[in-house]
Amino acid sequence: MEAKDFGRWVDTSLSGVEAALDSLVPAGAPAGLGEAMRYAVLGGGKRLRPLLVLASCAAVNGDEFAAMRAACAVELIHAYSLVHDDMPCMDNDVLRRGKPTTHVAYGEAQAMLAGDAMQALAFEVLTPLESEGGGIPPALQARLCALLARSSGYDGMAGGQAIDLASIGKPLDEATLRDMHRRKTGVLLQASVMMGAACGPAAAQATKSLSDYGAALGLAFQVVDDILDVTQDSAVLGKTAGKDQDANKPTYVSVLGLEAARALAQQLRAEAKAALAASGLADVSHLSLLADSVVERDN
Amino acid sequence: MEAKDFGRWVDTSLSGVEAALDSLVPAGAPAGLGEAMRYAVLGGGKRLRPLLVLASCAAVNGDEFAAMRAACAVELIHAYSLVHDDMPCMDNDVLRRGKPTTHVAYGEAQAMLAGDAMQALAFEVLTPLESEGGGIPPALQARLCALLARSSGYDGMAGGQAIDLASIGKPLDEATLRDMHRRKTGVLLQASVMMGAACGPAAAQATKSLSDYGAALGLAFQVVDDILDVTQDSAVLGKTAGKDQDANKPTYVSVLGLEAARALAQQLRAEAKAALAASGLADVSHLSLLADSVVERDN
Repeated sequence: MEAKDFGRWVDTSLSGVEAALDSLVPAGAPAGLGEAMRYAVLGGGKRLRPLLVLASCAAVNGDEFAAMRAACAVELIHAYSLVHDDMPCMDNDVLRRGKPTTHVAYGEAQAMLAGDAMQALAFEVLTPLESEGGGIPPALQARLCALLARSSGYDGMAGGQAIDLASIGKPLDEATLRDMHRRKTGVLLQASVMMGAACGPAAAQATKSLSDYGAALGLAFQVVDDILDVTQDSAVLGKTAGKDQDANKPTYVSVLGLEAARALAQQLRAEAKAALAASGLADVSHLSLLADSVVERDN
Repeated sequence: MEAKDFGRWVDTSLSGVEAALDSLVPAGAPAGLGEAMRYAVLGGGKRLRPLLVLASCAAVNGDEFAAMRAACAVELIHAYSLVHDDMPCMDNDVLRRGKPTTHVAYGEAQAMLAGDAMQALAFEVLTPLESEGGGIPPALQARLCALLARSSGYDGMAGGQAIDLASIGKPLDEATLRDMHRRKTGVLLQASVMMGAACGPAAAQATKSLSDYGAALGLAFQVVDDILDVTQDSAVLGKTAGKDQDANKPTYVSVLGLEAARALAQQLRAEAKAALAASGLADVSHLSLLADSVVERDN
């Protein structure tokens, strides 16, 4: 596939995700809650997780309606985690996606509630009622909820954040750092791939390969994040640069050094592509190009 | 049914719920997160929501394994909401169930993460994987997730909390107060009844009646809560008494006066029992006695 076809697919997919989120995140929720939720999730972000869901679904010729719902659900989880992570009791950050963070804009209490309601909304989005038009087979609803809950909870994202909290100012070896990032970021990226795959009839070999792809890509994402934290400025990142360094948090750059971190990112990209090659799926070009975009991004 | 049979059923049910929660909330979650989650959910609380799930399931001769999972899931949602509600940016409370609140015991960041992970765990608990022994038909998993997500999110509990936040110090009429409490407390209590009912093959009339029962009971619970807040001391309540009054929050007592609030609680109990009588279900005695215990409780 040519780069311009991929670019067109990304643009179309992003428009679809934005429209779906716009219709699913309620403007009318009471007492300003909907406004805060919409502020936190609409109109910003790279939407990498939704793109992974949609690309993975396309690779297995899956159910596109279900995949779009899954794409929105995983983005809601990601966005809620950013709202809570930015709060004063966590990272105390004021800038996100080039805008004031949600608690700066709406106050801490509303930000906490908005995050909580976004997590619940993710599971609503995955379980459309028949009275709402339905549209996802119940067994697939259950499977998507299972994948999303496990990847965002104590054994996934929330667990990784707890390790992160506990590790500030402490020396970590690469294995512990890898475990922390696998949980904190990697597991949800991998789950995005698996949720897309769950929307179609993927064979066992393909499912295993997509899982390996998701694991390598998830880790590559974090390695690149750590590299960008020290090599880019805040304006390009749309968030505060250098904050891990300032907070004395261990990163791939602080543990491995910049050059070895760059080499690791390339190695993980190669692993991700090798997994795709082993999947037996006919068209994995979007997934392959997403791996490139993760490693080559500048923000 | 005699009171002592009901008492025995309550004791057996509470032991079952406690054992199930103990096995489901992970001690081993990383970096102290599991410890904070267990502190927040084990060994305390009236467990009213789990009892409603189990009693409703029994009334429809439903699937007891699924109902126990649903009972734990709804209690995890309730417990996470208390953790977040007690935090300094919300109610800033230091005492809950007679113990220091979770953020006092573990710090604000860990408390926020524990609440987030408890919400995710609720949906894990509802979606047991085949590799974990399965045990709930996928369509029922999806239905339970749908009910739980909708009752805890923007249109339910989180939305009610947002109205609560926005209403401090403002005069509210009874209709607005009722809407706030319906969302904040009532909808999750009603969902507990409906999750139990979903575990069995309830007829449409029974489902409608159980929904009416849950709505009346949910409101009665909050009216009684408001009464106890002014008539009991902290030692009996296990939480800070008089705090709504101190925070200048509108309550049923401040809006209606104490005697009218007591009369409303009695009226709602009668409505709940009338709904049970109309259900056509053979044995609703546990649900009926739970309505009594909600209205007659002293904490």
